[in-house]
Amino acid sequence: MDVYEKSLKKHYEWAGKYEIALRAPLNTLDDLALCYTPGVSRACTEIAADKSKSFALTRRHNTVAVVTDGTAVLGLGDIGPEAALPVMEGKCALFKAFADIDATPICLDTKDPDEIVKIVTALSKTYGGINLEDISAPRCFDIERRLIDSCEIPIFHDDQHGTAIVAGAALINALRVVNKRISDVRIVINGAGSAGIAIAKFFLALGAGDVTCVDKCGVLVRDEAYQNPAHNEIAQITNKACIRGTLKDAIAGADVFLGVSAPKIVTKDMIASMACKPIVFPLANPIPEITRDEAIAAGAAVVGTGASNQPNQINNVLIFPGLFRGALDARARVITAEMKLAAAYALAGLVADGELNADYILPNPLDKRVAKTVAQAVAKEAKKQL
Amino acid sequence: MDVYEKSLKKHYEWAGKYEIALRAPLNTLDDLALCYTPGVSRACTEIAADKSKSFALTRRHNTVAVVTDGTAVLGLGDIGPEAALPVMEGKCALFKAFADIDATPICLDTKDPDEIVKIVTALSKTYGGINLEDISAPRCFDIERRLIDSCEIPIFHDDQHGTAIVAGAALINALRVVNKRISDVRIVINGAGSAGIAIAKFFLALGAGDVTCVDKCGVLVRDEAYQNPAHNEIAQITNKACIRGTLKDAIAGADVFLGVSAPKIVTKDMIASMACKPIVFPLANPIPEITRDEAIAAGAAVVGTGASNQPNQINNVLIFPGLFRGALDARARVITAEMKLAAAYALAGLVADGELNADYILPNPLDKRVAKTVAQAVAKEAKKQL
Repeated sequence: MDVYEKSLKKHYEWAGKYEIALRAPLNTLDDLALCYTPGVSRACTEIAADKSKSFALTRRHNTVAVVTDGTAVLGLGDIGPEAALPVMEGKCALFKAFADIDATPICLDTKDPDEIVKIVTALSKTYGGINLEDISAPRCFDIERRLIDSCEIPIFHDDQHGTAIVAGAALINALRVVNKRISDVRIVINGAGSAGIAIAKFFLALGAGDVTCVDKCGVLVRDEAYQNPAHNEIAQITNKACIRGTLKDAIAGADVFLGVSAPKIVTKDMIASMACKPIVFPLANPIPEITRDEAIAAGAAVVGTGASNQPNQINNVLIFPGLFRGALDARARVITAEMKLAAAYALAGLVADGELNADYILPNPLDKRVAKTVAQAVAKEAKKQL
Repeated sequence: MDVYEKSLKKHYEWAGKYEIALRAPLNTLDDLALCYTPGVSRACTEIAADKSKSFALTRRHNTVAVVTDGTAVLGLGDIGPEAALPVMEGKCALFKAFADIDATPICLDTKDPDEIVKIVTALSKTYGGINLEDISAPRCFDIERRLIDSCEIPIFHDDQHGTAIVAGAALINALRVVNKRISDVRIVINGAGSAGIAIAKFFLALGAGDVTCVDKCGVLVRDEAYQNPAHNEIAQITNKACIRGTLKDAIAGADVFLGVSAPKIVTKDMIASMACKPIVFPLANPIPEITRDEAIAAGAAVVGTGASNQPNQINNVLIFPGLFRGALDARARVITAEMKLAAAYALAGLVADGELNADYILPNPLDKRVAKTVAQAVAKEAKKQL
C-alpha cells in the first residue's frame, strides 16, 4: 500500500486528527458554577472593561485559526471547503505537535475575496492568530494585505511566507556550503505563483542582488504588461539584466535555481548550463522539477527538495509552528518583515559550521530545537516592535 | 471569595478552558507523511468525489461551532465578541464533558444579521452542527430561520430551544406531581424575549391548551400591534381569553407561572392569586422573579429555578449536549420539532414514578444517564426523518 492509500486508511481510523481536551474540571456542580454560569460572568465583565484580557482569561493567547477557501489545496487546485478539511486538520495537528498551539480549521464556502476579508475580520476577535492556507494566487495577496490592515492579530499566509522563510534559511546555508555571497549570486525562481513571488521578495529582503522570476509565460521582465498584477509588481524589482525568453535562457549562468512550478520541467542540460557549484531547489511536490539524482549528476553542488526521504527537505513545518509560537508569546499584532528574517536566520543558525555540508543545510523537521529556537528569535524581534 | 471572584481567579489559572489534543501520531517522518503531505491528498480527493465523506474522514462528524455575536451574553447584554468568549469556551467545555462533542467558540465581530447569516453559512462546511448562543432578540429569530434554510447541518439556538425543552420536561413532570393535564392548565410566561417565546411555542407543541405571554409592555393580546414582530406572531397563537393588563392580571387564576424576565417582579400575592397547586418556575438568573422559599410560602406546589443549589434546576445542560450528540450520531440535517419533543419526553422520562415528587422533577445535571438517553431519543427521531 503506498503512502496515499495508507493515509486514506488511517484517516478513516483516526476519524479526525484532533479533538478537544478540557483544561477546566467539570465533575461537580461547583465546577459547573465556576466554569460556566453563574461564575463565568465575572470573566466576561473583566474583559468587557479591558478587551486585551481576552487573551489571558481564555485560550485566545494560544489559538490560531487555519483558514482556507479550498481554492488551491496542495497540488489539487480548487477542490472546495469540505475536501480541504483534511489538510487544515493536518496543519492544526502540526501546530499542536510542534509548538503546543491550539489551532482549529476554518474552511470557508466562498471564493469572494471581499467576503473572505469580512469573514476573517469578524472571526479575528476569537483567535490569537490567523494562518491563511491554500488560497489561490493572485487572490491571496490582496486578501492577506487587507486582513493585515483590518485585524489586530497576526495574519500569515504560510504558502507564501512559510515557504519563503524556509527556502531563505536553506539558501543562507547552501551559500555557506559553496562559499558564495547572497549579494553576488544570480538566482532564478521558476513558478511565479504565491510561493514563488513570496520567495523572490524574501530573497531580496535577505540581501539577494539579482533574482529573476519565470512563469508559464516566460521570464518576467519589467517592460512587459502582465494580466496578473503580482507579476507586474515583481517584474519591477527583479531581473536586473532584463533577460527575455524562457527558463532555459534565464537559468544559463545562474548560481541558484529554485522551482515551485511543475514536475520534470528542468533538464540536466539546464543544470549543466548554470554557474559553477550551482544550488538547486526543485520544490514541486510530489514530483520535482528535476530529481535530486539527476541534478547532482548534472553538476549541482547542493540540492534541496520537498521530499521527506531525501536530504535537505525544505519543509514549512520548520517555520510556521515556531513563528506563530513566537508571535503569540510576544502578543505581536503583526508578523513583520524583521520577524520573518529573524526566523530564517534562527533556522539557518541551527546548523553549526562543523555539521554543515551539501547534504545537511537544514535541521530535520523532527528536531525539537527548531520551533523553540525560531519562536525565541521571532518573539525577541516582535518585542522590539511593541 | 464568592463564586464570581473564585471563577475569575480560576479563569486566570486555567488560561483557557479547552485545548487541542491529537488523535493522529506525529512522532516520525512517516507519521508526517500520513497525517499531512503527501498522504493527506488522498483523503482530499476522496471527499472531492463525495462531499459527505468529509464527516468520516475528518472530525466533522463530531464538531459543533458555538457561535455568538456577543449581543445578549448571560444577563450582561451586548458586551461584544471578546467578552463573550469565556461563556462560549465554557459551553464548549460542557459539550466535551457531557457528550464528548468537540466544540469550538466563534465570537463574531459583527451585529449585522445579514453578515452573520453569510458568515455562518460560509463556515458551515467545516462543522457537524452550529449552536447559536447569546444573540439578542428579535434578531436571533430571523438569523436562526435563515441559517436553517441555508445550511445543511443542524442549527440550534440554545437560548431559545434548549431552555424551552428543559422547561418542557420540567412542566411535564410538575404536572404529573400536581395531577393536572397540560391541555387543561392555564400557563403564564413572563418575559417575551427569545427564551420566553420559544418556551411558549414549545409548550403549545407539547399540547398546552392555554398559554399567555407577558412582556414589559404588559400582556400580549392578538389585536394589539407590537413593534417586535415576534410579539405579534406569538400573540396570535396565545392568550385565548384575550386577557389585558399586566402580569398581575394574567397570573390570577393561572395554573403555571414561568418567568424568564427580571429579578423580584413576582409577589407572594400574585402566587397566592393562582389556581390550586400552582407550578412556579422563576428562571431569571442569578436573582429569580420570586425566591423558591417565598413561592412555597405563598402556596406554590412545585417550584423550579435556575439555581444549582436548589431542587429542580432548569438547566440547559440537561438538553444541548445530548440533543447535539443524537443529531450528530444520526447525521441529521436539521433539528426538527419532533426531535425537540422527543428530547423533552426522554428527559422527563428519566424521573420514574416512584422517585417523582415536588422536589425532584428533573434529573441532576451531573446524572450520566441524561445525555445518553436524550441522544438516543433524538437520534431515533432523526432517523425517522431521513
